[in-house]
Amino acid sequence: MLECIVTKFGGSSLADDEQFRKVRSILELEPTRRFLVPSAPGKRFSSDDKVTDLLYRCHALASEGKAFDGPFEKIRERYLSIADSLHLKVDIASELDAVEKGIAAGNNRDWCASRGEYLCGLLMADYLGWRFVDAAKGVRFFDDGQLDEETTQSLLSSLLADGSPAVVPGFYGSLADGSIKTFSRGGSDITGALVARAVNADVYENWTDVSGFLMADPRVVDNPAEISSITYKELRELSHMGASVLHEDAMFPVHKAGIPTNIRNTNKPYHPGTVISKNAPNEVSVPTITGIAGHKGYSVISLEKNMMNSEVGFGRKVLQVLEEYGISFEHMPTGIDSMCVVASSEALAPHREEVLEKMKALVEDNGSVSVSDQMSIIATVGRGMVHNCGTAARLFSAMSRARINVRMIDQGSSELSIIVGVNDSDYENTVRAIYHEFVG
Amino acid sequence: MLECIVTKFGGSSLADDEQFRKVRSILELEPTRRFLVPSAPGKRFSSDDKVTDLLYRCHALASEGKAFDGPFEKIRERYLSIADSLHLKVDIASELDAVEKGIAAGNNRDWCASRGEYLCGLLMADYLGWRFVDAAKGVRFFDDGQLDEETTQSLLSSLLADGSPAVVPGFYGSLADGSIKTFSRGGSDITGALVARAVNADVYENWTDVSGFLMADPRVVDNPAEISSITYKELRELSHMGASVLHEDAMFPVHKAGIPTNIRNTNKPYHPGTVISKNAPNEVSVPTITGIAGHKGYSVISLEKNMMNSEVGFGRKVLQVLEEYGISFEHMPTGIDSMCVVASSEALAPHREEVLEKMKALVEDNGSVSVSDQMSIIATVGRGMVHNCGTAARLFSAMSRARINVRMIDQGSSELSIIVGVNDSDYENTVRAIYHEFVG
Repeated sequence: MLECIVTKFGGSSLADDEQFRKVRSILELEPTRRFLVPSAPGKRFSSDDKVTDLLYRCHALASEGKAFDGPFEKIRERYLSIADSLHLKVDIASELDAVEKGIAAGNNRDWCASRGEYLCGLLMADYLGWRFVDAAKGVRFFDDGQLDEETTQSLLSSLLADGSPAVVPGFYGSLADGSIKTFSRGGSDITGALVARAVNADVYENWTDVSGFLMADPRVVDNPAEISSITYKELRELSHMGASVLHEDAMFPVHKAGIPTNIRNTNKPYHPGTVISKNAPNEVSVPTITGIAGHKGYSVISLEKNMMNSEVGFGRKVLQVLEEYGISFEHMPTGIDSMCVVASSEALAPHREEVLEKMKALVEDNGSVSVSDQMSIIATVGRGMVHNCGTAARLFSAMSRARINVRMIDQGSSELSIIVGVNDSDYENTVRAIYHEFVG
Repeated sequence: MLECIVTKFGGSSLADDEQFRKVRSILELEPTRRFLVPSAPGKRFSSDDKVTDLLYRCHALASEGKAFDGPFEKIRERYLSIADSLHLKVDIASELDAVEKGIAAGNNRDWCASRGEYLCGLLMADYLGWRFVDAAKGVRFFDDGQLDEETTQSLLSSLLADGSPAVVPGFYGSLADGSIKTFSRGGSDITGALVARAVNADVYENWTDVSGFLMADPRVVDNPAEISSITYKELRELSHMGASVLHEDAMFPVHKAGIPTNIRNTNKPYHPGTVISKNAPNEVSVPTITGIAGHKGYSVISLEKNMMNSEVGFGRKVLQVLEEYGISFEHMPTGIDSMCVVASSEALAPHREEVLEKMKALVEDNGSVSVSDQMSIIATVGRGMVHNCGTAARLFSAMSRARINVRMIDQGSSELSIIVGVNDSDYENTVRAIYHEFVG
């Protein structure tokens, strides 16, 4: 039996009164949904503004001493129309005036931005008849801006200890001196995860405008299937390669606490969405692959040197050069007298000449260094591939039938993914070939 | 047109008078074979002694003050019977007496060992009617025992400048003070390569008792095919994995000089053997794979750590730990929050606990370190696989049909090989599956 669910609703799920009604009916479907973390109202249509963007604009204008009533009136209208239409009692007009004054008074950027969630939380608490718990009292940052996880956990658990339903606005918290501090953009996901951990929720539901994660990028594969179940580790691999709906930092608090996350669609409340959990328990059958994600634009630095292999420390020196310039390497395929390091071309660009210079010094006169760009990296991820003999065979056969040349392969670290490198021009075809091989 | 060939004959090619006759007829077949580098006489039958082993035994006995005439009489008999049977004129009996006296007088180990090649060279020069050039005058070592390549090149080229046919005994040379110094065992291959470079030979023929390199280990694959042509780079990859007939250092002098090496069989003089060259030129068709080699007994150290990927420098630190203990890593498959290093279990063994301790310190509390042993690494090598779309597909399909689970894949550095890791218990089946897929 589920005892307690924490829900987080994204901006598009709270864009207007109609969306507020959907949220309430979702909460009513399942009474154990007792905590709600709202974002700020998002876009109602594609050319609409997000409230958070409007707030940043107000702050920017104010800090240049300019009038900001243009964007602010839009904000005011958004909140007032929701309150009006839903017949809310909270004095949102006064709250809006206070925000306007605060911006004019030169309150800092984080404070201004955080008001979107704050005001949205006030409306939602009133609409649901739930308690409003200001995140400034529950989420604590260190003075350097890092989240103070321990204090946050203890503040939030005591604030929510009585178990009564509550709304905790997302995205912000405070420093020890009480001043407001926000997460990076999309940080309401993190607030939701922190609340879920604090109340030891059974599930953390993250309500968005998609029915969970897709197995592949819909810009590449037509109408890709949804992922019904994924582990945190699989998701890390996929989201690193660019497939993400969640704020990256949002997974760790709940992952650590062993709480599954359920990505749901506010507009399709009966769709089960994607469940993200530690071990994907109770599976009748695991699909061979969980998802495919990839990225163009990698560079491969190839080093050759006679007898490289007998030189203990060579690999370390190569990585040290990248480290000096703060460049992460993605992969390091190793031969006998040759070694490659793969890094994002963008990360390499500002230091390209210096890096190559230093690599050349490493291989000395009897070696060579070359760079080749425009490589894509594609990760095929699946907990089902461990101990599945045929996965690599199917994957490479599919690529071979599509006449795609494999420039790089890396598998073995997690036994959770097969990484292939192909020319950028083969990127889309590779993703499609793999998708159709395993999904159909 | 071939102008000049340097030949090197191994111990089994010089084991008795019958083998000497084969050598002469091989030289007569091709008059441009103008230089010969002999090893010391090897075994005539499987329980026979190699002369070099007997010489080491004499030295060991002499240095303990014991009589060494047991092994020495065997040596004397070997040389005298060859000289006798071939009606040679050189006064080999006096030379043998001088060697016996030198051993008794406490001459060092290298001097004693070198006499096998020296005496064999004297016999061969007499038999062929060629000039005898003592390697002590042509091959120079630094006092630390490293080869002095530059001096050697200049000494050998001037000694052999007149182009008249000559015999240069293998395996040894001298320090600047004239004392004898040998290469490591099997070093006659290196002498041959040095002579080939000094006379700028068109080909360096290395005559042995096999008809070139085999595509796979004959202990694993029944009757494997011979490799007709291989590049130095391919050979390095294969020989690193354990498939070798040549002394590893023997490839570089000729490789550097762009001279092809031809591995030939003294007992099958018309078999073309294996040609090792820089670029395998003039190929009508390149086979997809050139050879397969592998090794059991690797350990995989797996490190997991949250957000490892965002920590620039983590990979460098991991390699630094291995470097501290002088351990080479073979491969380093990389995931997002995980990384593996693969090293030989034997190299790891003496420092296993310390290495793991330090790795644990690197991942700190939120990570984990584990080791798994008994992994085999198999390299499938072939210059023909570059730009061949189907190679990986065929390889993994063959493994899949054989129900072999792939633990690791590494491809990309040289685009010359695909490396797979499998359980030690799957080693033989993997080599066979790959061989039969590509060779039949």
